[in-house]
Amino acid sequence: MAGGGGELQLLGSWYSPYAIRAKIALGLKGLSYEYIEQDLSSKSELLLKSNPVHKKVPVLIHGGRPVCESLVVLEYVDEAWAGDGPPLLPADANDRATARFWTNYFDSTFFPSWRALYRSTTAEQRAEAFRNAVPQVETLERAFGECSKGKAFFGGDAVGLVDVVIGSFVLWFRVVDDVAGTNLLDQAKSPGLAAWAERFLAVDAVREAMPDAELLLEHYKEFLAKFASPAGST
Amino acid sequence: MAGGGGELQLLGSWYSPYAIRAKIALGLKGLSYEYIEQDLSSKSELLLKSNPVHKKVPVLIHGGRPVCESLVVLEYVDEAWAGDGPPLLPADANDRATARFWTNYFDSTFFPSWRALYRSTTAEQRAEAFRNAVPQVETLERAFGECSKGKAFFGGDAVGLVDVVIGSFVLWFRVVDDVAGTNLLDQAKSPGLAAWAERFLAVDAVREAMPDAELLLEHYKEFLAKFASPAGST
Repeated sequence: MAGGGGELQLLGSWYSPYAIRAKIALGLKGLSYEYIEQDLSSKSELLLKSNPVHKKVPVLIHGGRPVCESLVVLEYVDEAWAGDGPPLLPADANDRATARFWTNYFDSTFFPSWRALYRSTTAEQRAEAFRNAVPQVETLERAFGECSKGKAFFGGDAVGLVDVVIGSFVLWFRVVDDVAGTNLLDQAKSPGLAAWAERFLAVDAVREAMPDAELLLEHYKEFLAKFASPAGST
Repeated sequence: MAGGGGELQLLGSWYSPYAIRAKIALGLKGLSYEYIEQDLSSKSELLLKSNPVHKKVPVLIHGGRPVCESLVVLEYVDEAWAGDGPPLLPADANDRATARFWTNYFDSTFFPSWRALYRSTTAEQRAEAFRNAVPQVETLERAFGECSKGKAFFGGDAVGLVDVVIGSFVLWFRVVDDVAGTNLLDQAKSPGLAAWAERFLAVDAVREAMPDAELLLEHYKEFLAKFASPAGST
Protein backbone atom coordinates (compact mmCIF):
# COMPACT_ATOMS: atom_id res chain seq x y z
CA MET A 1 0.00 0.00 0.00
CA ALA A 2 1.12 3.55 -0.70
CA GLY A 3 1.77 5.77 2.26
CA GLY A 4 -0.40 8.74 3.11
CA GLY A 5 2.12 11.45 2.20
CA GLY A 6 1.83 14.02 -0.57
CA GLU A 7 -0.38 16.98 -1.29
CA LEU A 8 -4.10 16.23 -1.44
CA GLN A 9 -6.70 17.98 -3.60
CA LEU A 10 -10.34 17.13 -4.29
CA LEU A 11 -12.15 18.27 -7.42
CA GLY A 12 -15.90 18.28 -6.74
CA SER A 13 -19.19 20.03 -7.31
CA TRP A 14 -21.05 21.03 -4.15
CA TYR A 15 -24.32 19.29 -5.12
CA SER A 16 -22.80 16.07 -6.53
CA PRO A 17 -23.56 13.02 -4.35
CA TYR A 18 -20.51 11.35 -5.89
CA ALA A 19 -18.26 14.19 -4.75
CA ILE A 20 -20.00 14.15 -1.33
CA ARG A 21 -18.89 10.50 -0.99
CA ALA A 22 -15.26 11.55 -1.36
CA LYS A 23 -15.69 14.43 1.12
CA ILE A 24 -17.23 12.11 3.74
CA ALA A 25 -14.45 9.52 3.33
CA LEU A 26 -11.71 12.15 3.66
CA GLY A 27 -13.52 13.57 6.71
CA LEU A 28 -13.86 10.16 8.36
CA LYS A 29 -10.11 9.62 7.90
CA GLY A 30 -9.42 13.09 9.35
CA LEU A 31 -7.45 14.18 6.30
CA SER A 32 -6.74 17.80 5.31
CA TYR A 33 -7.12 18.64 1.65
CA GLU A 34 -7.62 21.50 -0.76
CA TYR A 35 -11.16 21.46 -2.17
CA ILE A 36 -11.47 22.85 -5.70
CA GLU A 37 -15.08 23.47 -6.78
CA GLN A 38 -15.76 22.55 -10.41
CA ASP A 39 -18.28 24.19 -12.74
CA LEU A 40 -19.53 21.20 -14.75
CA SER A 41 -21.14 23.46 -17.35
CA SER A 42 -17.67 24.81 -18.21
CA LYS A 43 -15.09 22.16 -17.34
CA SER A 44 -11.67 23.28 -16.14
CA GLU A 45 -8.38 22.29 -17.73
CA LEU A 46 -7.47 20.62 -14.45
CA LEU A 47 -10.59 18.41 -14.53
CA LEU A 48 -10.15 17.51 -18.22
CA LYS A 49 -6.48 16.69 -17.67
CA SER A 50 -7.14 14.72 -14.46
CA ASN A 51 -10.10 12.67 -15.71
CA PRO A 52 -9.79 12.61 -19.52
CA VAL A 53 -11.95 9.49 -19.89
CA HIS A 54 -15.10 10.49 -17.99
CA LYS A 55 -14.52 14.25 -17.35
CA LYS A 56 -16.52 13.93 -14.12
CA VAL A 57 -16.16 14.68 -10.41
CA PRO A 58 -14.94 13.58 -7.97
CA VAL A 59 -11.24 13.44 -8.73
CA LEU A 60 -8.87 12.99 -5.80
CA ILE A 61 -5.37 14.19 -6.64
CA HIS A 62 -2.76 12.74 -4.29
CA GLY A 63 0.85 13.83 -4.74
CA GLY A 64 -0.05 14.89 -8.30
CA ARG A 65 -1.66 11.54 -9.28
CA PRO A 66 -5.41 11.63 -9.98
CA VAL A 67 -7.83 8.96 -8.76
CA CYS A 68 -11.22 9.04 -10.53
CA GLU A 69 -14.67 7.49 -10.02
CA SER A 70 -16.22 7.71 -6.55
CA LEU A 71 -16.16 3.98 -5.68
CA VAL A 72 -12.50 3.80 -6.73
CA VAL A 73 -11.74 6.93 -4.68
CA LEU A 74 -13.40 5.41 -1.58
CA GLU A 75 -11.39 2.18 -1.79
CA TYR A 76 -8.23 4.22 -2.50
CA VAL A 77 -8.74 6.40 0.58
CA ASP A 78 -9.38 3.29 2.69
CA GLU A 79 -6.18 1.62 1.45
CA ALA A 80 -3.79 4.57 1.25
CA TRP A 81 -4.73 5.72 4.78
CA ALA A 82 -5.40 2.30 6.27
CA GLY A 83 -3.93 3.44 9.58
CA ASP A 84 -5.99 6.65 9.85
CA GLY A 85 -9.56 6.68 11.14
CA PRO A 86 -11.98 3.77 11.01
CA PRO A 87 -11.79 1.36 8.04
CA LEU A 88 -14.50 1.79 5.38
CA LEU A 89 -14.41 -1.91 4.52
CA PRO A 90 -14.50 -4.68 7.13
CA ALA A 91 -11.57 -7.11 7.51
CA ASP A 92 -13.40 -10.34 6.65
CA ALA A 93 -13.34 -11.24 2.92
CA ASN A 94 -16.97 -12.36 2.89
CA ASP A 95 -18.16 -9.18 4.63
CA ARG A 96 -16.08 -7.14 2.15
CA ALA A 97 -17.80 -8.96 -0.74
CA THR A 98 -21.21 -8.24 0.81
CA ALA A 99 -20.35 -4.52 1.11
CA ARG A 100 -19.08 -4.35 -2.49
CA PHE A 101 -22.18 -6.20 -3.72
CA TRP A 102 -24.48 -3.58 -2.19
CA THR A 103 -22.44 -0.58 -3.39
CA ASN A 104 -22.60 -2.05 -6.91
CA TYR A 105 -26.32 -2.68 -6.47
CA PHE A 106 -26.91 0.91 -5.41
CA ASP A 107 -25.03 2.45 -8.33
CA SER A 108 -26.11 -0.02 -11.05
CA THR A 109 -29.68 -0.94 -10.08
CA PHE A 110 -31.10 1.39 -7.42
CA PHE A 111 -29.78 4.65 -8.87
CA PRO A 112 -31.16 4.21 -12.43
CA SER A 113 -34.56 3.43 -10.90
CA TRP A 114 -34.52 6.46 -8.57
CA ARG A 115 -33.17 8.69 -11.37
CA ALA A 116 -36.49 8.26 -13.19
CA LEU A 117 -38.19 9.91 -10.19
CA TYR A 118 -35.52 12.62 -10.07
CA ARG A 119 -36.08 13.40 -13.74
CA SER A 120 -39.89 13.29 -13.62
CA THR A 121 -41.66 16.56 -14.33
CA THR A 122 -45.34 15.54 -14.30
CA ALA A 123 -47.56 13.92 -11.66
CA GLU A 124 -48.07 10.86 -13.88
CA GLN A 125 -44.33 10.38 -14.42
CA ARG A 126 -43.73 10.79 -10.70
CA ALA A 127 -46.38 8.27 -9.69
CA GLU A 128 -44.99 5.66 -12.09
CA ALA A 129 -41.35 6.28 -11.18
CA PHE A 130 -42.17 6.08 -7.48
CA ARG A 131 -44.05 2.79 -7.94
CA ASN A 132 -41.04 1.38 -9.79
CA ALA A 133 -38.61 2.57 -7.09
CA VAL A 134 -40.50 0.97 -4.17
CA PRO A 135 -39.22 -2.61 -4.76
CA GLN A 136 -35.64 -1.24 -4.87
CA VAL A 137 -36.17 0.48 -1.50
CA GLU A 138 -37.48 -2.81 -0.10
CA THR A 139 -34.32 -4.52 -1.37
CA LEU A 140 -32.17 -1.85 0.32
CA GLU A 141 -34.12 -2.32 3.56
CA ARG A 142 -33.19 -6.02 3.45
CA ALA A 143 -29.59 -5.05 2.60
CA PHE A 144 -29.47 -2.94 5.76
CA GLY A 145 -30.39 -5.99 7.82
CA GLU A 146 -27.79 -8.13 6.04
CA CYS A 147 -24.94 -5.62 6.36
CA SER A 148 -25.61 -4.03 9.74
CA LYS A 149 -26.39 -7.28 11.56
CA GLY A 150 -28.58 -5.33 14.00
CA LYS A 151 -26.09 -2.48 14.52
CA ALA A 152 -26.47 1.24 13.75
CA PHE A 153 -24.88 1.40 10.30
CA PHE A 154 -24.43 -0.74 7.19
CA GLY A 155 -20.80 -0.88 8.35
CA GLY A 156 -21.82 -2.17 11.80
CA ASP A 157 -21.05 0.09 14.76
CA ALA A 158 -19.39 2.70 12.54
CA VAL A 159 -20.01 4.26 9.12
CA GLY A 160 -18.58 2.09 6.33
CA LEU A 161 -18.44 1.90 2.54
CA VAL A 162 -22.15 1.13 1.99
CA ASP A 163 -23.22 3.92 4.36
CA VAL A 164 -21.13 6.45 2.45
CA VAL A 165 -22.30 5.24 -0.97
CA ILE A 166 -26.03 5.28 -0.16
CA GLY A 167 -25.91 8.05 2.43
CA SER A 168 -24.43 10.53 -0.05
CA PHE A 169 -27.90 10.50 -1.66
CA VAL A 170 -30.03 11.01 1.46
CA LEU A 171 -30.43 14.80 1.08
CA TRP A 172 -31.13 14.28 -2.61
CA PHE A 173 -33.85 11.75 -1.75
CA ARG A 174 -35.46 14.37 0.51
CA VAL A 175 -35.22 17.19 -2.02
CA VAL A 176 -36.82 15.05 -4.74
CA ASP A 177 -39.48 13.84 -2.26
CA ASP A 178 -40.18 17.47 -1.40
CA VAL A 179 -40.92 18.39 -5.01
CA ALA A 180 -42.60 15.09 -5.99
CA GLY A 181 -44.73 14.74 -2.86
CA THR A 182 -43.26 11.28 -2.23
CA ASN A 183 -41.59 9.72 0.83
CA LEU A 184 -38.90 7.33 -0.33
CA LEU A 185 -37.52 6.21 3.05
CA ASP A 186 -40.91 5.89 4.74
CA GLN A 187 -40.70 5.23 8.49
CA ALA A 188 -43.56 2.71 8.43
CA LYS A 189 -42.43 0.80 5.34
CA SER A 190 -38.62 1.06 5.70
CA PRO A 191 -38.08 1.53 9.43
CA GLY A 192 -34.45 0.37 9.28
CA LEU A 193 -33.47 2.76 6.49
CA ALA A 194 -35.48 5.69 7.85
CA ALA A 195 -33.78 5.51 11.26
CA TRP A 196 -30.39 4.82 9.64
CA ALA A 197 -30.69 8.00 7.51
CA GLU A 198 -31.15 10.14 10.66
CA ARG A 199 -28.17 8.53 12.38
CA PHE A 200 -26.04 8.91 9.26
CA LEU A 201 -26.78 12.63 8.85
CA ALA A 202 -25.84 13.21 12.51
CA VAL A 203 -22.26 11.92 12.05
CA ASP A 204 -19.74 14.80 12.19
CA ALA A 205 -17.88 13.94 8.97
CA VAL A 206 -21.23 13.61 7.19
CA ARG A 207 -22.66 16.91 8.46
CA GLU A 208 -19.50 18.70 7.37
CA ALA A 209 -19.65 17.18 3.86
CA MET A 210 -23.35 17.78 3.19
CA PRO A 211 -24.61 20.79 1.24
CA ASP A 212 -27.27 23.12 2.59
CA ALA A 213 -30.67 21.47 2.05
CA GLU A 214 -32.36 24.73 0.96
CA LEU A 215 -29.66 25.46 -1.64
CA LEU A 216 -29.93 21.87 -2.90
CA LEU A 217 -33.70 22.28 -3.29
CA GLU A 218 -33.18 25.49 -5.29
CA HIS A 219 -30.57 23.74 -7.44
CA TYR A 220 -32.97 20.85 -8.12
CA LYS A 221 -35.83 23.21 -9.04
CA GLU A 222 -33.53 25.00 -11.51
CA PHE A 223 -32.51 21.64 -12.99
CA LEU A 224 -36.15 20.62 -13.41
CA ALA A 225 -37.03 23.93 -15.04
CA LYS A 226 -34.22 23.46 -17.58
CA PHE A 227 -34.93 19.75 -18.02
CA ALA A 228 -38.65 20.29 -18.64
CA SER A 229 -37.95 23.02 -21.19
CA PRO A 230 -36.95 21.85 -24.69
CA ALA A 231 -34.69 24.90 -25.02
CA GLY A 232 -32.76 23.84 -21.93
CA SER A 233 -32.17 20.30 -23.08
CA THR A 234 -30.02 21.15 -26.13
CA MET B 1 -9.35 -11.85 5.65
CA ALA B 2 -11.21 -15.13 5.68
CA GLY B 3 -9.19 -18.27 5.23
CA GLY B 4 -9.42 -20.44 2.15
CA GLY B 5 -11.18 -23.40 3.78
CA GLY B 6 -14.66 -24.72 3.00
CA GLU B 7 -16.37 -26.34 0.05
CA LEU B 8 -16.27 -24.35 -3.19
CA GLN B 9 -18.90 -24.32 -5.93
CA LEU B 10 -19.27 -22.12 -8.99
CA LEU B 11 -22.60 -21.51 -10.70
CA GLY B 12 -21.96 -20.48 -14.31
CA SER B 13 -23.11 -20.71 -17.90
CA TRP B 14 -20.47 -21.95 -20.33
CA TYR B 15 -20.80 -18.99 -22.74
CA SER B 16 -21.03 -16.21 -20.12
CA PRO B 17 -17.95 -13.95 -20.12
CA TYR B 18 -18.81 -13.01 -16.53
CA ALA B 19 -18.71 -16.66 -15.46
CA ILE B 20 -15.48 -17.12 -17.47
CA ARG B 21 -13.93 -14.39 -15.31
CA ALA B 22 -14.61 -16.43 -12.19
CA LYS B 23 -13.26 -19.61 -13.80
CA ILE B 24 -10.02 -17.88 -14.82
CA ALA B 25 -9.51 -16.41 -11.34
CA LEU B 26 -10.09 -19.78 -9.64
CA GLY B 27 -7.72 -21.39 -12.16
CA LEU B 28 -5.00 -18.79 -11.58
CA LYS B 29 -5.24 -19.44 -7.84
CA GLY B 30 -5.05 -23.21 -8.46
CA LEU B 31 -8.30 -23.87 -6.59
CA SER B 32 -10.45 -27.01 -6.97
CA TYR B 33 -14.18 -26.45 -7.15
CA GLU B 34 -17.42 -28.03 -8.26
CA TYR B 35 -18.73 -26.34 -11.40
CA ILE B 36 -22.54 -26.33 -11.72
CA GLU B 37 -23.76 -25.31 -15.18
CA GLN B 38 -26.87 -23.10 -15.11
CA ASP B 39 -29.62 -22.96 -17.72
CA LEU B 40 -30.49 -19.24 -17.71
CA SER B 41 -33.73 -19.87 -19.62
CA SER B 42 -34.98 -21.95 -16.70
CA LYS B 43 -33.25 -20.78 -13.53
CA SER B 44 -32.49 -23.31 -10.82
CA GLU B 45 -33.65 -23.05 -7.21
CA LEU B 46 -29.99 -22.93 -6.21
CA LEU B 47 -29.32 -19.89 -8.43
CA LEU B 48 -32.47 -18.06 -7.29
CA LYS B 49 -31.67 -18.75 -3.65
CA SER B 50 -27.99 -17.82 -4.02
CA ASN B 51 -28.48 -14.59 -6.01
CA PRO B 52 -32.04 -13.43 -5.26
CA VAL B 53 -31.33 -9.81 -6.24
CA HIS B 54 -29.89 -10.23 -9.74
CA LYS B 55 -30.56 -13.95 -10.46
CA LYS B 56 -27.42 -14.03 -12.63
CA VAL B 57 -24.20 -16.00 -12.96
CA PRO B 58 -21.53 -16.24 -11.76
CA VAL B 59 -22.17 -17.12 -8.15
CA LEU B 60 -19.28 -18.47 -6.12
CA ILE B 61 -20.46 -20.46 -3.10
CA HIS B 62 -17.75 -20.81 -0.47
CA GLY B 63 -18.54 -22.86 2.60
CA GLY B 64 -22.24 -22.35 1.86
CA ARG B 65 -22.03 -18.52 1.54
CA PRO B 66 -22.73 -17.10 -1.93
CA VAL B 67 -20.67 -14.30 -3.51
CA CYS B 68 -22.37 -12.67 -6.52
CA GLU B 69 -21.36 -10.27 -9.31
CA SER B 70 -18.20 -11.05 -11.24
CA LEU B 71 -16.11 -8.05 -10.10
CA VAL B 72 -17.01 -8.80 -6.49
CA VAL B 73 -16.15 -12.48 -7.01
CA LEU B 74 -12.72 -11.55 -8.45
CA GLU B 75 -11.81 -9.33 -5.50
CA TYR B 76 -13.17 -11.98 -3.10
CA VAL B 77 -11.02 -14.71 -4.64
CA ASP B 78 -7.98 -12.43 -4.51
CA GLU B 79 -8.56 -11.63 -0.82
CA ALA B 80 -9.75 -15.01 0.51
CA TRP B 81 -6.82 -16.83 -1.15
CA ALA B 82 -4.25 -14.05 -0.86
CA GLY B 83 -1.53 -16.63 -0.24
CA ASP B 84 -2.39 -18.84 -3.24
CA GLY B 85 -1.20 -18.08 -6.75
CA PRO B 86 -0.32 -14.62 -8.08
CA PRO B 87 -2.30 -11.62 -6.77
CA LEU B 88 -4.96 -10.22 -9.15
CA LEU B 89 -4.51 -6.71 -7.78
CA PRO B 90 -1.11 -5.05 -7.30
CA ALA B 91 0.08 -4.02 -3.81
CA ASP B 92 0.37 -0.26 -4.41
CA ALA B 93 -2.83 1.69 -3.61
CA ASN B 94 -2.47 3.93 -6.67
CA ASP B 95 -1.93 0.95 -9.00
CA ARG B 96 -4.97 -0.75 -7.42
CA ALA B 97 -7.05 2.36 -8.09
CA THR B 98 -5.87 2.39 -11.73
CA ALA B 99 -6.84 -1.29 -12.14
CA ARG B 100 -10.28 -0.71 -10.57
CA PHE B 101 -10.81 2.37 -12.75
CA TRP B 102 -10.28 0.35 -15.94
CA THR B 103 -12.40 -2.60 -14.84
CA ASN B 104 -15.23 -0.15 -14.09
CA TYR B 105 -14.61 1.54 -17.45
CA PHE B 106 -14.83 -1.77 -19.27
CA ASP B 107 -18.10 -2.85 -17.65
CA SER B 108 -19.80 0.57 -17.55
CA THR B 109 -18.60 2.30 -20.74
CA PHE B 110 -16.88 -0.12 -23.12
CA PHE B 111 -19.36 -2.99 -22.76
CA PRO B 112 -22.57 -1.00 -23.49
CA SER B 113 -20.88 0.36 -26.62
CA TRP B 114 -19.71 -3.08 -27.83
CA ARG B 115 -23.10 -4.63 -26.93
CA ALA B 116 -24.67 -2.54 -29.70
CA LEU B 117 -22.41 -4.36 -32.18
CA TYR B 118 -23.22 -7.72 -30.56
CA ARG B 119 -26.94 -7.05 -30.91
CA SER B 120 -26.79 -5.69 -34.47
CA THR B 121 -28.56 -7.76 -37.09
CA THR B 122 -28.20 -5.60 -40.22
CA ALA B 123 -25.17 -4.26 -42.10
CA GLU B 124 -26.22 -0.68 -41.35
CA GLN B 125 -26.56 -1.35 -37.62
CA ARG B 126 -23.20 -3.11 -37.60
CA ALA B 127 -21.40 -0.29 -39.41
CA GLU B 128 -22.77 2.31 -37.00
CA ALA B 129 -22.12 0.22 -33.89
CA PHE B 130 -18.57 -0.49 -35.02
CA ARG B 131 -17.89 3.21 -35.69
CA ASN B 132 -19.14 4.03 -32.19
CA ALA B 133 -17.00 1.29 -30.60
CA VAL B 134 -13.72 2.41 -32.22
CA PRO B 135 -13.05 5.32 -29.79
CA GLN B 136 -13.60 2.94 -26.84
CA VAL B 137 -11.03 0.53 -28.30
CA GLU B 138 -8.60 3.43 -28.65
CA THR B 139 -9.19 4.27 -24.98
CA LEU B 140 -8.51 0.63 -23.99
CA GLU B 141 -5.32 0.67 -26.07
CA ARG B 142 -4.17 3.66 -24.01
CA ALA B 143 -5.29 1.86 -20.83
CA PHE B 144 -3.04 -1.05 -21.77
CA GLY B 145 -0.06 1.30 -21.89
CA GLU B 146 -1.00 2.87 -18.56
CA CYS B 147 -1.55 -0.43 -16.71
CA SER B 148 1.10 -2.70 -18.26
CA LYS B 149 3.92 -0.13 -18.17
CA GLY B 150 5.54 -1.89 -21.13
CA LYS B 151 5.06 -5.42 -19.78
CA ALA B 152 3.07 -8.33 -21.24
CA PHE B 153 -0.22 -7.89 -19.38
CA PHE B 154 -2.41 -5.17 -17.90
CA GLY B 155 -1.27 -6.66 -14.59
CA GLY B 156 2.42 -6.28 -15.54
CA ASP B 157 4.43 -9.49 -15.88
CA ALA B 158 1.45 -11.65 -14.89
CA VAL B 159 -2.29 -11.72 -15.57
CA GLY B 160 -4.17 -9.39 -13.20
CA LEU B 161 -7.67 -8.06 -12.56
CA VAL B 162 -7.94 -5.96 -15.73
CA ASP B 163 -6.66 -8.81 -17.91
CA VAL B 164 -9.31 -11.15 -16.53
CA VAL B 165 -12.13 -8.58 -16.84
CA ILE B 166 -11.37 -7.61 -20.46
CA GLY B 167 -9.87 -10.93 -21.53
CA SER B 168 -13.06 -12.83 -20.65
CA PHE B 169 -14.57 -11.11 -23.70
CA VAL B 170 -11.82 -11.83 -26.24
CA LEU B 171 -13.46 -14.92 -27.77
CA TRP B 172 -16.77 -13.05 -27.83
CA PHE B 173 -15.09 -10.14 -29.69
CA ARG B 174 -13.88 -12.65 -32.30
CA VAL B 175 -17.20 -14.42 -32.67
CA VAL B 176 -19.04 -11.12 -33.18
CA ASP B 177 -16.29 -9.94 -35.58
CA ASP B 178 -16.72 -13.17 -37.49
CA VAL B 179 -20.43 -12.59 -38.06
CA ALA B 180 -20.24 -8.79 -38.46
CA GLY B 181 -17.18 -8.75 -40.73
CA THR B 182 -15.41 -6.39 -38.31
CA ASN B 183 -12.00 -6.54 -36.62
CA LEU B 184 -12.27 -4.99 -33.18
CA LEU B 185 -8.71 -5.54 -31.93
CA ASP B 186 -7.02 -4.66 -35.22
CA GLN B 187 -3.27 -5.33 -35.24
CA ALA B 188 -2.48 -2.12 -37.13
CA LYS B 189 -4.74 0.18 -35.09
CA SER B 190 -4.47 -1.45 -31.64
CA PRO B 191 -1.13 -3.26 -31.71
CA GLY B 192 -0.85 -3.41 -27.93
CA LEU B 193 -4.29 -4.97 -27.42
CA ALA B 194 -4.02 -7.33 -30.41
CA ALA B 195 -0.74 -8.83 -29.16
CA TRP B 196 -2.02 -8.86 -25.57
CA ALA B 197 -5.11 -10.88 -26.62
CA GLU B 198 -2.87 -13.62 -28.10
CA ARG B 199 -0.70 -13.74 -24.99
CA PHE B 200 -3.76 -13.82 -22.73
CA LEU B 201 -5.40 -16.72 -24.57
CA ALA B 202 -2.16 -18.73 -24.31
CA VAL B 203 -2.14 -18.66 -20.47
CA ASP B 204 -2.99 -22.13 -19.05
CA ALA B 205 -5.72 -20.97 -16.63
CA VAL B 206 -7.30 -18.96 -19.47
CA ARG B 207 -7.22 -21.80 -22.02
CA GLU B 208 -8.85 -24.10 -19.49
CA ALA B 209 -11.64 -21.59 -18.73
CA MET B 210 -12.48 -20.63 -22.31
CA PRO B 211 -15.34 -22.25 -24.23
CA ASP B 212 -14.85 -23.85 -27.63
CA ALA B 213 -14.81 -21.06 -30.24
CA GLU B 214 -16.95 -23.02 -32.73
CA LEU B 215 -19.63 -23.74 -30.13
CA LEU B 216 -19.61 -20.08 -29.09
CA LEU B 217 -20.11 -19.03 -32.72
CA GLU B 218 -23.07 -21.42 -33.02
CA HIS B 219 -24.50 -20.08 -29.75
CA TYR B 220 -24.17 -16.49 -31.01
CA LYS B 221 -25.85 -17.31 -34.33
CA GLU B 222 -28.76 -18.90 -32.46
CA PHE B 223 -29.01 -15.79 -30.26
CA LEU B 224 -29.07 -13.52 -33.31
CA ALA B 225 -31.73 -15.64 -35.01
CA LYS B 226 -33.95 -15.36 -31.92
CA PHE B 227 -33.10 -11.68 -31.34
CA ALA B 228 -33.87 -10.72 -34.95
CA SER B 229 -37.18 -12.59 -34.91
CA PRO B 230 -40.11 -10.78 -33.24
CA ALA B 231 -41.47 -14.14 -32.07
CA GLY B 232 -38.22 -14.90 -30.26
CA SER B 233 -38.10 -11.64 -28.41
CA THR B 234 -41.28 -12.09 -26.36
